[in-house]
Amino acid sequence: MTRERLYLYDTTLRDGQQTQGVQFSTSDKMQIARALDELGVDYIEGGWPGANPTDSAFFNEAPKTRAKLAAFGMTKRAGRSAANDEVLAAVMNAGTDTVCLVGKAHDYHVSAALGITLDENLENIGASIAHIVAQGREALFDAEHFFDGYKDNPDYALAACRAALDAGARWIVLCDTNGGALPAEVGRIVTEVIAAGIPGDRLGVHTHNDTENAVACSLAAVDAGARQIQGTLNGLGERCGNANLISLIPTLLLKEPYASRFETEVTEHALAGLTRVSRMLDDILNRVPMRQSPYVGASAFAHKAGLHASAIVKDPGTYEHIAPERVGNARIIPMSNQAGQSNLRKRLAEAGLEVARDDPALGLILDQIKEREDQGYSYDTAQASFELLARAALGQMPEFFEVKRYKVTVERRKNKYNRMVSLSEAVVVVKVDGEKRLSVSESLDDTGGDRGPVNALSKALAKDLGQYSAVLEDMRLVDFKVRITQGGTEAVTRVIIDSEDGKGRRWSTVGVSPNIVDASFEALLDAIRWKLVRDS
Amino acid sequence: MTRERLYLYDTTLRDGQQTQGVQFSTSDKMQIARALDELGVDYIEGGWPGANPTDSAFFNEAPKTRAKLAAFGMTKRAGRSAANDEVLAAVMNAGTDTVCLVGKAHDYHVSAALGITLDENLENIGASIAHIVAQGREALFDAEHFFDGYKDNPDYALAACRAALDAGARWIVLCDTNGGALPAEVGRIVTEVIAAGIPGDRLGVHTHNDTENAVACSLAAVDAGARQIQGTLNGLGERCGNANLISLIPTLLLKEPYASRFETEVTEHALAGLTRVSRMLDDILNRVPMRQSPYVGASAFAHKAGLHASAIVKDPGTYEHIAPERVGNARIIPMSNQAGQSNLRKRLAEAGLEVARDDPALGLILDQIKEREDQGYSYDTAQASFELLARAALGQMPEFFEVKRYKVTVERRKNKYNRMVSLSEAVVVVKVDGEKRLSVSESLDDTGGDRGPVNALSKALAKDLGQYSAVLEDMRLVDFKVRITQGGTEAVTRVIIDSEDGKGRRWSTVGVSPNIVDASFEALLDAIRWKLVRDS
Repeated sequence: MTRERLYLYDTTLRDGQQTQGVQFSTSDKMQIARALDELGVDYIEGGWPGANPTDSAFFNEAPKTRAKLAAFGMTKRAGRSAANDEVLAAVMNAGTDTVCLVGKAHDYHVSAALGITLDENLENIGASIAHIVAQGREALFDAEHFFDGYKDNPDYALAACRAALDAGARWIVLCDTNGGALPAEVGRIVTEVIAAGIPGDRLGVHTHNDTENAVACSLAAVDAGARQIQGTLNGLGERCGNANLISLIPTLLLKEPYASRFETEVTEHALAGLTRVSRMLDDILNRVPMRQSPYVGASAFAHKAGLHASAIVKDPGTYEHIAPERVGNARIIPMSNQAGQSNLRKRLAEAGLEVARDDPALGLILDQIKEREDQGYSYDTAQASFELLARAALGQMPEFFEVKRYKVTVERRKNKYNRMVSLSEAVVVVKVDGEKRLSVSESLDDTGGDRGPVNALSKALAKDLGQYSAVLEDMRLVDFKVRITQGGTEAVTRVIIDSEDGKGRRWSTVGVSPNIVDASFEALLDAIRWKLVRDS
Repeated sequence: MTRERLYLYDTTLRDGQQTQGVQFSTSDKMQIARALDELGVDYIEGGWPGANPTDSAFFNEAPKTRAKLAAFGMTKRAGRSAANDEVLAAVMNAGTDTVCLVGKAHDYHVSAALGITLDENLENIGASIAHIVAQGREALFDAEHFFDGYKDNPDYALAACRAALDAGARWIVLCDTNGGALPAEVGRIVTEVIAAGIPGDRLGVHTHNDTENAVACSLAAVDAGARQIQGTLNGLGERCGNANLISLIPTLLLKEPYASRFETEVTEHALAGLTRVSRMLDDILNRVPMRQSPYVGASAFAHKAGLHASAIVKDPGTYEHIAPERVGNARIIPMSNQAGQSNLRKRLAEAGLEVARDDPALGLILDQIKEREDQGYSYDTAQASFELLARAALGQMPEFFEVKRYKVTVERRKNKYNRMVSLSEAVVVVKVDGEKRLSVSESLDDTGGDRGPVNALSKALAKDLGQYSAVLEDMRLVDFKVRITQGGTEAVTRVIIDSEDGKGRRWSTVGVSPNIVDASFEALLDAIRWKLVRDS
């Protein structure tokens, strides 16, 4: 059976930029466009030329992509021709082969927001699309508020779509602009639109996640016959975000009925890079990746429940709906007080530690983990600290160096300009290869800003570890989490530190103490010791 | 038309605890159970009695709730009677009126994971449920892997459900255990199950978010006739989480066809507390609330696109699918204070500050809050810091005292018994009534343990404030939360401190700085100043 073609239209660079707190630079946009192209989307909507300097600059530098680059804009205003509308002219001037224009499909909005007649709006749609087509370009029409409009006045909503279709639009995109439509009604309405004569292979769908149904609404539209999906990487977008292509792509490629029915430009190889693409976007935005993200989150294939973990060890298929490596992710069987010896051995094997089934060290390690969890430690995420604990129990942990003492000072006072400024300073004394070494660092960054006591300690600790210093050069602290928790009978501070190195490794360590600086120091020490186990 | 009853079953305390990194204490569980009860869910699944000490302790303290408290466990093992299965006995011993047992509905799992015959499994299900019913309790059967099982062997999956139903189970819950089912197939299968003779008003659905469709799968099951939804607050749960009740509840109450067709125990008033419930859970977990969360996220009603913002000012209905106040959330319109001012006046009045509608200070306060939120401050919980900021803008904030400088030292070294010990010491210099005062404190508690630098600072700061010292005597620090967050372009530390006094007041203050000690100091200062505003 021939598979039908399904098209993916990415709007991360346009609608994704409407996310609160997101502002891409031109170079961010270039990097994301290249990643989207490698992934295999069909269209990359680059922005609204003329709306802001970054979007205009991006189109000027126009990256060469296999995917079609689309400029976004709106239909011309009433009372002038398409050629004489300077907002539309700026969009056309970006010179893309594809242009997508948003226009009203809901009669109420035509009157209330635009203040023009319903016929004027239809004329604006038709004339604008015809203007694009006359220049030999491919035109898309984003029918704004289509679903609400259709529910209020189906004839007018369809008339808006037909105006675009008749003028030569390649795609009519049904937009659920305020995110309020639910999957069942999207399915029903798309079915009715096709029955009214707009062909499914000319229909796209653009949904938002305001009810947590953006992905499901997209699938419902495809089930009903639409053949283009608009969405964004990691579900970025206005309010609660757009349909998440990172979730949709593996569902369409790996799961039925989609896998057998449709084909896209996304290859198996590109799919295996999906987790990397998702985390790259978080890196650009300086966000911590969501652990629970479908398919690509660090927890997406983590099996914590004892019942699940023991079955997974026998057969991963028992509790996994797809194999994690298909999307470039990995299975995790975290340690916790729910775990037993079977997932402990599995976890140890993943850290390169093969331990026999009957080794008494297994019981010792489980007891130590339980005892430490009672003190406030947590090894669910701090896998690197878990490995060090296990290595020590197995007698496979080198000492490397010994910390003799440290001292941190935090001071806040007026500077000579009478402004309050703060400064932290750390002194660390270690013994390496029988030799005592003193290091001191302060907490200032490149701009002279104080980064605090943990920063100063981290720098002082790594500064002079003799033969080990070289190994630590490519290592950096990327995240730092603090929580107050119960340790035995009193409150303690738990610090979790995420570190990264030049080889692309990322690892997490934990420290616990009533003293927050001391808890941080313990996590920092583990981070360094883990890196030394790997590389020295 | 009579509306049909729809039941909500919350498993935050059981399946929610399977989230990587989540470990509730007994008191966390009590607090969450009370919030769930106020919200109006029908069932609160408290945990698996006997599986770990926290779950057992929670059932021992058994909070009185309107909602039914359910204990979770698994069907008895083969080769023994239900009464003689000690795992099941521990579940029964929790003494709850409702018991939910998970059992296999997928033939492959019966053989591969349990290693028993298909008939033995059916006998285990029937006998276990009958054992619950015989004790006069309400029984639920969680049919594990139901959807995968039904696709492989529908007769067996249905036989497992019938075994439970015939034994007297009130509810048969169809579980999509590995999260792989898609909404359309969930809808189709539930329809077939009902057609096969299992009544819809005895059917529940339990879905996971591995394809980002947990909410949609739950709705599809309800559309097909199921009448109980299992889910968790904020979609907590194993791997990618469970169906998010925080998203489902407003959809079921506010949107069609659900609002007209169904009734639940959730009142309009409880719904208006939904945002607070969601953020309370994040507080307990010390997580930063997701801005893009449907309905309750800080961005859920934020209108960034210029096109949207200008229409929203004319008519909020244009770009909002529901009114934000229905779920206790608020609209955010950048570059427009219109919406914010009335909320602000309400909040000021709560702090005893009556401000006229046209007072220019309102705009000033909103601008300052926006600026500070950009720097990483958060005034959602830190009501006392908000009040101080407003008082300053209104010219109603006395100075009390001025901090000239402080210095904190944290030291860790070997003591005379060759044990590593740590000690923190703080010096604070203030000017009160024109007089300079130096105070020094160290961080040791009654047992000689080091409580860390913030403890030392807190004591030194309150030690000698001249005429104000007496007022501060009944005040103490009760909680301390630390988060790394985004401040402008770089990561900063946000500290929130909860304080309490002898009059039973409890108040929260916030401090932000790249330096964690400095952020803590700022929050401590606000805590003291708020107390002085009240009592001096």
